Formats: sequence, structure tokens, C-alpha cells
Amino acid sequence: MQSGRLEAFTDGVVAIIITIMVLELKVPHDGSLAALSDTMPILLAYAMSFINVGLYWNNHHHLMHATDRIDGKVLWANLFLLFWLSLVPFVIRWLDESGFAAMATAAYGVVLGMAAIGYELTERAIIACNGRDGALARAVGSDLKGKASLALYLIAVPAAFFARPVAIALYVAVVLLWLIPDRRIERALES
Amino acid sequence: MQSGRLEAFTDGVVAIIITIMVLELKVPHDGSLAALSDTMPILLAYAMSFINVGLYWNNHHHLMHATDRIDGKVLWANLFLLFWLSLVPFVIRWLDESGFAAMATAAYGVVLGMAAIGYELTERAIIACNGRDGALARAVGSDLKGKASLALYLIAVPAAFFARPVAIALYVAVVLLWLIPDRRIERALES
Amino acid sequence: MQSGRLEAFTDGVVAIIITIMVLELKVPHDGSLAALSDTMPILLAYAMSFINVGLYWNNHHHLMHATDRIDGKVLWANLFLLFWLSLVPFVIRWLDESGFAAMATAAYGVVLGMAAIGYELTERAIIACNGRDGALARAVGSDLKGKASLALYLIAVPAAFFARPVAIALYVAVVLLWLIPDRRIERALES
Amino acid sequence: MQSGRLEAFTDGVVAIIITIMVLELKVPHDGSLAALSDTMPILLAYAMSFINVGLYWNNHHHLMHATDRIDGKVLWANLFLLFWLSLVPFVIRWLDESGFAAMATAAYGVVLGMAAIGYELTERAIIACNGRDGALARAVGSDLKGKASLALYLIAVPAAFFARPVAIALYVAVVLLWLIPDRRIERALES
Repeated sequence: MQSGRLEAFTDGVVAIIITIMVLELKVPHDGSLAALSDTMPILLAYAMSFINVGLYWNNHHHLMHATDRIDGKVLWANLFLLFWLSLVPFVIRWLDESGFAAMATAAYGVVLGMAAIGYELTERAIIACNGRDGALARAVGSDLKGKASLALYLIAVPAAFFARPVAIALYVAVVLLWLIPDRRIERALES
Repeated sequence: MQSGRLEAFTDGVVAIIITIMVLELKVPHDGSLAALSDTMPILLAYAMSFINVGLYWNNHHHLMHATDRIDGKVLWANLFLLFWLSLVPFVIRWLDESGFAAMATAAYGVVLGMAAIGYELTERAIIACNGRDGALARAVGSDLKGKASLALYLIAVPAAFFARPVAIALYVAVVLLWLIPDRRIERALES
Repeated sequence: MQSGRLEAFTDGVVAIIITIMVLELKVPHDGSLAALSDTMPILLAYAMSFINVGLYWNNHHHLMHATDRIDGKVLWANLFLLFWLSLVPFVIRWLDESGFAAMATAAYGVVLGMAAIGYELTERAIIACNGRDGALARAVGSDLKGKASLALYLIAVPAAFFARPVAIALYVAVVLLWLIPDRRIERALES
Repeated sequence: MQSGRLEAFTDGVVAIIITIMVLELKVPHDGSLAALSDTMPILLAYAMSFINVGLYWNNHHHLMHATDRIDGKVLWANLFLLFWLSLVPFVIRWLDESGFAAMATAAYGVVLGMAAIGYELTERAIIACNGRDGALARAVGSDLKGKASLALYLIAVPAAFFARPVAIALYVAVVLLWLIPDRRIERALES
């Protein structure tokens, strides 16, 4: 099996996920400034999720670029990743309708954490399929960012029930971890 | 006509179907654990449908790979398949809104059964177009899995009215039939 | 400009239109047979629209295949066609919510008639761009089917206000006109 | 990184945005002519937005055609552009539900103005990545249309609060600025 069609299919699903999130948002209930500022938290959650899904797309692109052989395990690990990403619009809507309830805030971390695990599984399946000595195995290295993200989600999910701002700060931290150019972060994490 | 564009179009439609199913789900009505557990059945139905559509995508990929000649019959058989797959999000929503009513549970089987027939028709149209001696004809063989799936749906649809759990168990059985790696199942079915 | 990207973009838009129509349908309000039969007319309208959009996709495919040069006029004629096709889900929803009101039934004909004009414009723009002596100009010929479709829509739109079944029968007639294999119909129309 | 996948992803997102806008529109509340004419303003806003997004797609196509090298900055500038375009369906819905409230009318200009900035940023990132002497740098020139559009949006946004028809006229003016064939406009702007 070739990686081309998997890549195209993933692109299609990600393009849809990133776009339909906006369908889930309630518009301001009238034309006042107060109504607009009520909508701000969910718009910011949307912007953050847009960046998160964009990061997955970007990383997925690099992952697929480093391989051209895939097998059934890669395909199902990839579908597992897409499944959790597809729940992002669902959680966004829940956050919106419940006014950022603790349970919905925790669910955001669970969904993104499971997506991170899905990404990890896809990466490992590709390495297993191409051999431990391949370019990808070397490029991925110890994958500190991935492990740090998972750890942050693991802290954020229970934090959502006791200290919501902490959970939200941790979600933002994961985004920044990936957005800030690689070398400095990796050196910081490795030291 | 070339199979490339049909493949790309099918990928696009399947990517959309698999993603918009989530738009149909009602979010938990509040942030309590009870509300989340009320949502669980439909989330599981979503997950199962995600796997089902993923299986069709995967199988369709293999089907298209074995041919490069298609004709008008292949195209319309394929559209017939896509039509029934496009009703999956509709049935998911019906299941959700009716609280898994018997009629909606039966409709799930009808829609997936018709999709299975659509897949069968596409397969036959491709074989007819490439000749009975082609690689695809040999690869498909007697297509025991396809026939077993159809038989299970035929039992599940009436069962939905008398014994809903049986119908649901049969739907899960079809998914497992396809998910479990090929050789063992096929040997079991053939013996 | 190359036709490849226009073709891919059109495929994407058509794949989305054909799939989101189902999002517009109201599910049966309960699990009874009566509720299901109330839903039947709109499901049939959905099926007919699915075939209609599928026909456009199929014909568009042939159109693009006969050319590789396109210009700005082709692009905008094509966007005009996509605009009207994108209103099909809107009209389907209107038909559903108004219970097939005369105005909505007429609107269905207006939208599909304008799409037919858009297709005609795209065809002419491609011929103008490739020269009257090109393969496409000969293949299209006098385009009797296109003209007959437009004439049927012109009769169906006013008929929707006085005799709705006649309008609906004419919509079905246009679909059959395109579905039935070419040669016989064209001979019938030419004689 | 190659421009091909970025182009395909952008096409996918734009195809979805242009199509789901129609999901946001409320259908006429009954089958009367009055109900249809109540729907007209939002249908026209939809048509204008369809043209706007179509223009971005068309221009993006030319931009990507002039380059084959992209880097991380191009990718994120492009995602910034897509983010703002993805808010167009949101603003359309807000316009619809608030009956073209001043705030929503202003938001339309903010969203399209930010998209114009995103396009500008993408253009600059591509030039920076390919060198100031490249074909693109020469082709873009002083980009008078882009600057004029931004200026018009800057006037239109505050105008929405004091003189809504002026704001709407300015939005239409930007569309015409881009729709009317290039040379004449550019000469007029340069003189």
C-alpha cells in the first residue's frame, strides 16, 4: 500500500474537521458589545483548536514525508488518530453549550490526549514498518515533545475539576510547546 | 475513463461522511457524570460507524488498486454505495433523537446492508469491465465475508423489533468479522 | 492555467454538496412506521438530488477530460455552476420544512435550471478557449439534452404553483433523460 | 517542503468553507413570496461571500503557481488566512440571525480584512522564501489592489455603526475591484 492515498484521505478529514468546528459555535445572541464579549471565550477555544489541528496536520505531513511504505497497522493507527481529532468539534460544542463546565473542560484534554496517543501509535507503526534504522526512527529520536504533551494533558484533565484556569493554561502550554521553533525547546527539555 | 478521479471523489465523500457524523450528535445536556453516561451509547454507535466507514474506505482502496479501467456501470454502482453510506449520519442522528428506537435500530441495518450490496455491485461491475480472468476476479474469490455480512444484516433488521440487543450484537459481529485479520476468519468460514 | 486544479476543486465542492444534503433532513420524529412514511417524500427528494448532482459530476468529468486549457472565463462559469449546485441543499431543507410548498417546489426547478445554464456556460467557455474545431465542440454537437432539460425546467417552475405533481414529474423526467443511456434518447430527440 | 500538499489542503478547506455557508442560512419560514423576499438579503450576502471566497481561491492558485518552495512561515501565514476565511460562515449566520445588526455588519469587514492581511502575509512569506528577485516578487509588484481592499475595509468597519448602507457598498466595491479584469483597474489606480 502506498502512503499517497492515506495522506490525501487524512488531509481531507483534517480539512473538514478544521472547518466544521465553526458550525458548532453559537453566534452572539444580539448585536451588542456585551453579546460579542460573551462569545469571546468560545472563539478563543476555537482559535486554539484550529492551531492544534493545524499542528497535527503539519506534523503528519512530515511523518508521511519520511516514509513511503505503510501497512494495515499504520492505517488503523491513523484512523484512531482521526477518530479523536473528529471529536474536537464535538467537545468545542459541549464547551460552548455548557459554558465551559468542568466535565467539558476535562473532556477537551481527554480528546486531545487520545489524539496525541494516536499520533504516537501512527509514528511507531510507521517505524515498525520501515525498520528501526530508518531515517524516521532517527528523526523522531526520543520524541520529548510528544511525551511532554501527554504528561501535561494527564495533569490538566484532573485539574479541570479543581482549578479550571490551570487546566486551560496547560492546554495553552501544549500549543506553545509545539508552536515555538524546535531547537530551543528541545535543548531546554533535554537539559 | 480512469479510476483516479473516481477514487479521489470517493475519498472526498467518505472523508466528509466520516467527519460530519459527529455534527449529528447531541452533546451532554450538562456537565454532570450522569449526562456524560447518557451520551455514551450514541458515542459508541458513532465509534462503530466510524470503523464501519473506515473499513469501506480501506476495502474500496484495495478494489480500486486492482483495476485501472472503469466504465459507466462502475461509476453508478459506486454512487449507489456512496448514497447508502451518506445515510449513515442520518441514521446516527435518528438513533440519537429517538433513544435507539426499534425502527431506527433496524434502519441502521438496512442502510449498512444496502451499502454492502452497493459494494458488491461495484465489485462485480469492475470485474465485468476487466474480465473474469483478471487479478481482481481471482483476488475476490467467493467473497465469503461480504456474503456473511449481508446474511447477518438480514437477521439483524427483523431482530431489531423483537430483541434489540441481538441486532446490536450482530452489527458489532460484522465489524469484528472485517477487523480481525483475514486468514484465520476466511479459513474458519471456508471450513 | 491548468484544468487539473479546477477539476480537483470542483470534485471537492461536489463531494461536499452531495454529502451535506443529508444534514438538512429532519429525522422521523419518533420510531413509528407513520413517522417513517412521513419522511419518505423528503428522502426521495434527497435521492433524486443525489442522482442529479452525481450526473453533473459525471458530465463535468467528461467535459474536463476533453480539454487541458482553461482561462478566467471557464473558471468563473464553473464557479457560477457550483454556486447554484450549492443551493440544492438549501432548497432540499426548504422543501422539508415547508412540506413541499409550491414556492419551494418552484425554487427547486429554478436552482437546477440555473445550474443547467451554468453547465452550458462552462461548456461554451471551454469551447471558446479551445477553438470551435476542437474535439469538444464536435463531441458536444447541438447539445439536445441540455436544451431539453432547460425547456422542462421552464415548464416545471410555473407548473409548481398550479399542478405540483406535474412539476415533480418533470423533475423526474429530466433525471431519466440523463440516466438512460445516450444513443437511444438522442436518436429520439433528433427525429 | 513542497507546495503541492499545501495547495491541496487549502483547496479542501476553501471547498468546504464555500459549501457550508449555505448550511448556515435559515430557509424562508413559509412558502409565501413575502417570506422569500425576507430571505433575499441573506441570500445576496451569501452570493457575495461565495464570490469573495472564490476570488481568494483563484488568487491563491496563482500565488502557489509562481513558487514551489515553501517553509514553515508560509505554512502558518496560510493557516492564518484559512482561519479568517473559516469565520466567514460564522459571520454570515450572525448577519442572518441578528437581521444585519451593525455589530455583525462590522464583523464581516473585520473577518474579510483579516483574511486580506493573511493573504498579504502569505504572499510576503513566499517572496521571502524565494528571494526578492524571483518571478513572484516582480509579478506582485506594489500590490495596489490588496492595499486598496484593506483601506476600504478600514473605512467600512466603523461605517457599519453609523451608515450601514455605506459599509455594504464598500464590501461590494472590494468585490468589484477584484472581479473587473485587471489592466484597466490597475492603470486607474496607478494614475
